[in-house]
Amino acid sequence: MKTSLRTHTCGELTANNIGEKVTLCGWIQKIRKLGGMTFIDLRDRYGITQLAFNAETNPDLCKQIEPFGREWVIQVTGTVAERYSKNKNIPTGDIEILAEKITVLNESLTPPFTIEDESDGGDELRMKFRYLDLRRNPVKNNLLFRHKLGIAIRNYMNNIGFVEIETPMLVNSTPEGARDFVVPSRLSHGEFYALPQSPQTFKQLLMVSGFDRYFQIVKCFRDEDLRADRQPEFTQIDCEMSFITQEDILQTFEGLIKYIFKEIKGIDIEPIERITWHDAMKYYGSDKPDARFGMRFVELNNVLQHKDFKVFNEAELVVGIVAKGCAHYSRKQLDELTNFVKRPQVGATGLVYIQCQEDGHFKSSVDKFYDQNDLQAVAKECGAEAGDLILIMAGPRMKTQTQLCQLRLEMGSRLGLRKAGEYKLLWVVDFPLLEWDEETQRYYAMHHPFTAPKPEHEAMLESDPGHVNANAYDLVINGTEVGGGSIRIHDKELQKRMFKALGFTEEEAQKQFGFLMNAFQYGAPPHGGLAFGFDRMCSVLCDADTIRDFIAFPKNNAARDMMLGAPTPISDAQLKELGLK
Amino acid sequence: MKTSLRTHTCGELTANNIGEKVTLCGWIQKIRKLGGMTFIDLRDRYGITQLAFNAETNPDLCKQIEPFGREWVIQVTGTVAERYSKNKNIPTGDIEILAEKITVLNESLTPPFTIEDESDGGDELRMKFRYLDLRRNPVKNNLLFRHKLGIAIRNYMNNIGFVEIETPMLVNSTPEGARDFVVPSRLSHGEFYALPQSPQTFKQLLMVSGFDRYFQIVKCFRDEDLRADRQPEFTQIDCEMSFITQEDILQTFEGLIKYIFKEIKGIDIEPIERITWHDAMKYYGSDKPDARFGMRFVELNNVLQHKDFKVFNEAELVVGIVAKGCAHYSRKQLDELTNFVKRPQVGATGLVYIQCQEDGHFKSSVDKFYDQNDLQAVAKECGAEAGDLILIMAGPRMKTQTQLCQLRLEMGSRLGLRKAGEYKLLWVVDFPLLEWDEETQRYYAMHHPFTAPKPEHEAMLESDPGHVNANAYDLVINGTEVGGGSIRIHDKELQKRMFKALGFTEEEAQKQFGFLMNAFQYGAPPHGGLAFGFDRMCSVLCDADTIRDFIAFPKNNAARDMMLGAPTPISDAQLKELGLK
Repeated sequence: MKTSLRTHTCGELTANNIGEKVTLCGWIQKIRKLGGMTFIDLRDRYGITQLAFNAETNPDLCKQIEPFGREWVIQVTGTVAERYSKNKNIPTGDIEILAEKITVLNESLTPPFTIEDESDGGDELRMKFRYLDLRRNPVKNNLLFRHKLGIAIRNYMNNIGFVEIETPMLVNSTPEGARDFVVPSRLSHGEFYALPQSPQTFKQLLMVSGFDRYFQIVKCFRDEDLRADRQPEFTQIDCEMSFITQEDILQTFEGLIKYIFKEIKGIDIEPIERITWHDAMKYYGSDKPDARFGMRFVELNNVLQHKDFKVFNEAELVVGIVAKGCAHYSRKQLDELTNFVKRPQVGATGLVYIQCQEDGHFKSSVDKFYDQNDLQAVAKECGAEAGDLILIMAGPRMKTQTQLCQLRLEMGSRLGLRKAGEYKLLWVVDFPLLEWDEETQRYYAMHHPFTAPKPEHEAMLESDPGHVNANAYDLVINGTEVGGGSIRIHDKELQKRMFKALGFTEEEAQKQFGFLMNAFQYGAPPHGGLAFGFDRMCSVLCDADTIRDFIAFPKNNAARDMMLGAPTPISDAQLKELGLK
Repeated sequence: MKTSLRTHTCGELTANNIGEKVTLCGWIQKIRKLGGMTFIDLRDRYGITQLAFNAETNPDLCKQIEPFGREWVIQVTGTVAERYSKNKNIPTGDIEILAEKITVLNESLTPPFTIEDESDGGDELRMKFRYLDLRRNPVKNNLLFRHKLGIAIRNYMNNIGFVEIETPMLVNSTPEGARDFVVPSRLSHGEFYALPQSPQTFKQLLMVSGFDRYFQIVKCFRDEDLRADRQPEFTQIDCEMSFITQEDILQTFEGLIKYIFKEIKGIDIEPIERITWHDAMKYYGSDKPDARFGMRFVELNNVLQHKDFKVFNEAELVVGIVAKGCAHYSRKQLDELTNFVKRPQVGATGLVYIQCQEDGHFKSSVDKFYDQNDLQAVAKECGAEAGDLILIMAGPRMKTQTQLCQLRLEMGSRLGLRKAGEYKLLWVVDFPLLEWDEETQRYYAMHHPFTAPKPEHEAMLESDPGHVNANAYDLVINGTEVGGGSIRIHDKELQKRMFKALGFTEEEAQKQFGFLMNAFQYGAPPHGGLAFGFDRMCSVLCDADTIRDFIAFPKNNAARDMMLGAPTPISDAQLKELGLK
């Protein structure tokens, strides 16, 4: 990294360089005075090197640096010397530079927050001055990690014959799915491009073209109200293959995932377990289970609906989990859990517990309705042992599953079962093809309208659409959906039936997806694929809370760029030219 | 590339596989009947393999394939056999598959044009059915080339310490420069994002952040009226470095370019020559000279303004080129050249020629005004020899240079001096910082408003802005600008002076680029960079006429996607939600 302005970076000098004359450039991290000595920590992307200034032997230089402050940019020439008190924490900790000449390359105002691993700047301030936030090691390292991951993925995909092909960003708007960002056309007033939510149709067209194996690391856009872990623009690792079955896809991308873990994290992962969507819901109440710990759901309808407890008797589902060794939970702790499930975010009406005491007795919040034999039967059904706590919820099936899922995750966190640095991967397979929406009274595609029904379910597409499963699959790591995909429809007639099942008129289908259905007339091969969320993959691999940490210039929850101030009003002339005025 | 549906691809079987039972998938390229034999050429991305069907030994199979047509997708199982008449032109030409079982994976309508290297389809038809056009070898190979080039560039940049960082696509609109595509905000009616024309300000901010070496292969957008070689969305290889001088940048990217030529084309290129912008204009009439051939301009004011020829005497510039060995040009050929320069695209009023005849005599279109001695003086000045043709134009300096440049290129083409497969690279350096626009009566930045004046010219920024040069540079290959960049301003005060020179009020500058100028207050390092046009680099390296050939789904000259039909009207509900109704 030698340039005309430096001989070395701030991260590379060691005891091997002692005696060498060097020139470094960087930012002042810290200035310390110790008696007649002044020390400056000089920082660049590659590390920190200590500069030493001796007031006795070099008073002019010491005078020159007096006004210097944090984050000034300087160039320094000096000789590498062994350091008196070594710093074992950094690679350059054995040496320092006896400074001989300093040039100020740029001054700096005092930054609005400290440029340290732990900064004193609040979220909003750091976003506004993102260029300073990016100087901090944790943020910088996130972006270096992302780069490294991108390079590794591209080389792996290239090596197994995938071709990266760029698909367009100015496409057509499709009302199906999330909301599009649109771009007014200057040449055709009243007409709009849309920014792609994914290159889905293009990658299918590339399969029709015979590219056989396509991938792309690509920006995608969704104009949705943002949750903590969503951004209006995000990056996908988008992939598609021809002449394959689901098994080929799972094997191919299991290879990629294994490679990533080995190459980037140094971890050998085990063959990825598979679970059906149905079982994931049944045992974890979620289509993206955190399987780092068990605590599987046990259905208790049979053992709890024979007494006089209406809440259970009237419930579609009575279901429990076992918290190992938690029988000793205090009243207060149990109340906390009840309050947790009653929070609006979870929305349950209550929680029943059974404490399996060490002495063989059971204590429960429903002692009024169930005797010791009843409770023992529950414990047996759950596989609970003395010392364990059983937590039970009841109500409509899906709702109760989802609520108990949140309690399970909460218990996992409380018991330290969701360990950072431990990775449990799952393929969730056999998703339903469609899901019913009560509000609009129609079916929606669970993945997207191009997903193929399982061949053995194809016949039910009209007669029993709700029970048609798809060869659709998600990759879940530690409870986060990192990617997903499906085998696609490649037959024009089946695609028509699918659009019909989704409530499209033939005209609507033709208008929106005509080009794809036309393409299917000219020899579409069997194909399928998947897409990983690149931002999310980064955050999961680094045990981070949000994808925002891995995006250089993210938007806030109101989809604003705090640094740029975007979006902004545009001029009347621009509006007029676009036909918007 | 084995999958559940095939054991091999159509490009890999050779004599080594004879006797093996294989399964292939692909598209039917051609069906031929020869007596009792039917042959099918089966095509996939990897190649073509011949399938053989014997009516005598396998009548049922022959019956099954009878309805098959071009572009049907089939799966075939059979045994590899030596071919009777070998095809030396393809890797699989020694073998054929004795077909035993066929499955139709998809039928195909007859494609609207032939899927051959030379297609019978017109441009518009092929764009509309781009997914079929992409099946053709030349188009397919262009995209494979682009992929390969992308991988090579990324690995080279990674190896020399550059980090790929994604910058946002939803940014703020800046009226300076080309027209922006804008994106209405749903959350803030009346406000707009813009799609980036380049990540220029972001990469500078990343330098302020200390990333030291950044690159990105990234989509950029310009809402301009399209010329043949422009697209509304295009891809840049965008790069920036800190703590460098212009020399570091030229060396670094000369390294990249050398690597690309060696790795991708197998060509060792010579050290890249440098020419100043001033000399490029003087000797080639262009800031992107095609230097595969000489034919340099010779200024002839001194030797041609002493006689009574008003056209020359009143001209700011009289300038000529020598066409070697063209003295024999006929009246008709000379008229063609005159007509060429008179075309509206060139716009000259006339052309003067001097034929340096083999016998030592000169014949000229201005014999009335100049005698043999005069013409000999011109020939001497030009270095023309017996047998050469001198072509002379006159008029205002810049205009005449530009016109003669076009004639020079025309002559280069006529004389076969612009050879495909021969590459002449140039760094054009020392661009003027500003260029004057007559229409708006103001200076515009020749590169962009962040380009630094040469330090020795800085003082003239107010007093003589038109003569300030910049450390700005373009890479030119065979007359095409493939990339360009500059050393940037990293000082807030200098940036302010620059905006002032461009006619910005302080308010306008602050409003549009405040975030960048603010960033410069917090320790911006000296930095600079460049960007290559990725699409254009592909086309130049492949001697192709247009970048469109290297884009999977390009737009036409009206910025429409002919396949999608984009842009399109959007629904009233969408317009309303965006505050546009």
